[in-house]
Amino acid sequence: MDDLTRVRRLPHHQRTKRTELDSVLDAGRVAHVAIVQDMQPLAIPMAYVRDGDELLFHGSTGSRAMRELRSGAPMYATVTILDGIVVARCAFESSMHYRAAMLFGSCHEVNDVERASRLFTNGILPGRTEEVRPSSSKELAATLVVRLPIDRWSLKVSDGDPEDLSEDQASDAWAGVVPIRSTYGPPRPSADLKRGIEVPPSVRSLAQ
Amino acid sequence: MDDLTRVRRLPHHQRTKRTELDSVLDAGRVAHVAIVQDMQPLAIPMAYVRDGDELLFHGSTGSRAMRELRSGAPMYATVTILDGIVVARCAFESSMHYRAAMLFGSCHEVNDVERASRLFTNGILPGRTEEVRPSSSKELAATLVVRLPIDRWSLKVSDGDPEDLSEDQASDAWAGVVPIRSTYGPPRPSADLKRGIEVPPSVRSLAQ
Repeated sequence: MDDLTRVRRLPHHQRTKRTELDSVLDAGRVAHVAIVQDMQPLAIPMAYVRDGDELLFHGSTGSRAMRELRSGAPMYATVTILDGIVVARCAFESSMHYRAAMLFGSCHEVNDVERASRLFTNGILPGRTEEVRPSSSKELAATLVVRLPIDRWSLKVSDGDPEDLSEDQASDAWAGVVPIRSTYGPPRPSADLKRGIEVPPSVRSLAQ
Repeated sequence: MDDLTRVRRLPHHQRTKRTELDSVLDAGRVAHVAIVQDMQPLAIPMAYVRDGDELLFHGSTGSRAMRELRSGAPMYATVTILDGIVVARCAFESSMHYRAAMLFGSCHEVNDVERASRLFTNGILPGRTEEVRPSSSKELAATLVVRLPIDRWSLKVSDGDPEDLSEDQASDAWAGVVPIRSTYGPPRPSADLKRGIEVPPSVRSLAQ
């Protein structure tokens, strides 16, 4: 642990197990990637997929942010999952349940774009690559993929009951947690979908 | 619109109505705030509330990030809401439905911390300030609130059907959208909640 990866605010929320980090990364869908362009810090939402000990980001070869990442500039990626509203007996102690993974470092370009693209597709829709045609060389040439080593990171998790002051415990105010859940709704076919095409296994696998 | 607020990638997703921006800001719960500390860009998840033409962020007076924001350093705040998985007939055109609001600028300190704290509390739980004691002067003194003018911003919304190539339309692959929904689960009382305290109106108002 170093100056960047040590949690200073509410340090009891820090988690240090790599397996717990991976479960947060695998549950999230979008990272917010911080880079600096022309002295201006940016926080860009990007899809990602975990590939073992690396996090992969992909985008267009024309994207300025992707080219900045490819250059190896210092970056930061945060994956935040909100799990609930923490309702304390006073306003000050009210907060949220969350899992926030932060990764620091710099990226390198991925050479095997075809493999990486399959990881992205199957990461969102398990088995989808078996249901569609392979990506064309034109599509692969338009795609830039970079990888960030999962090396310097911190994980902060808030999942407990509200921590009210002892003098507030006697109050008649309610205290507890309201869970937040993210779920998938029923698949909606494209307006131009040919008749008679069933919802495929990859999409059905999302149903909870 | 200027160089920072013009959407360059997929410009047809750009939205320019302030009312649409406000509806995204009011639907979101957490912004990712980009700042630079010691040459390192950071993307920090922060609760926020919209106060008319300003976005308010709050935190501890001891938080380094909050003090950086108070200093008026250039910052960037992104509010991203994921609305669905876009399943195209090929991997390349598959993507997500999202609403992403990006705001640029620098913050100023808010003097009336008491009013701002009430906005935060009621923003998450409507009417909650009527159910709990007022914040103490000690609690208010420990809270730093900054405001960002909603002035330079961009909004990107993806909400259409997948845009497949014409040669893929004849394929037998399924295409459509799987909606993602965020919902509240049943409120869970604190382990130490006194008996006989009912779930209050503010918490009941979250039920959908």
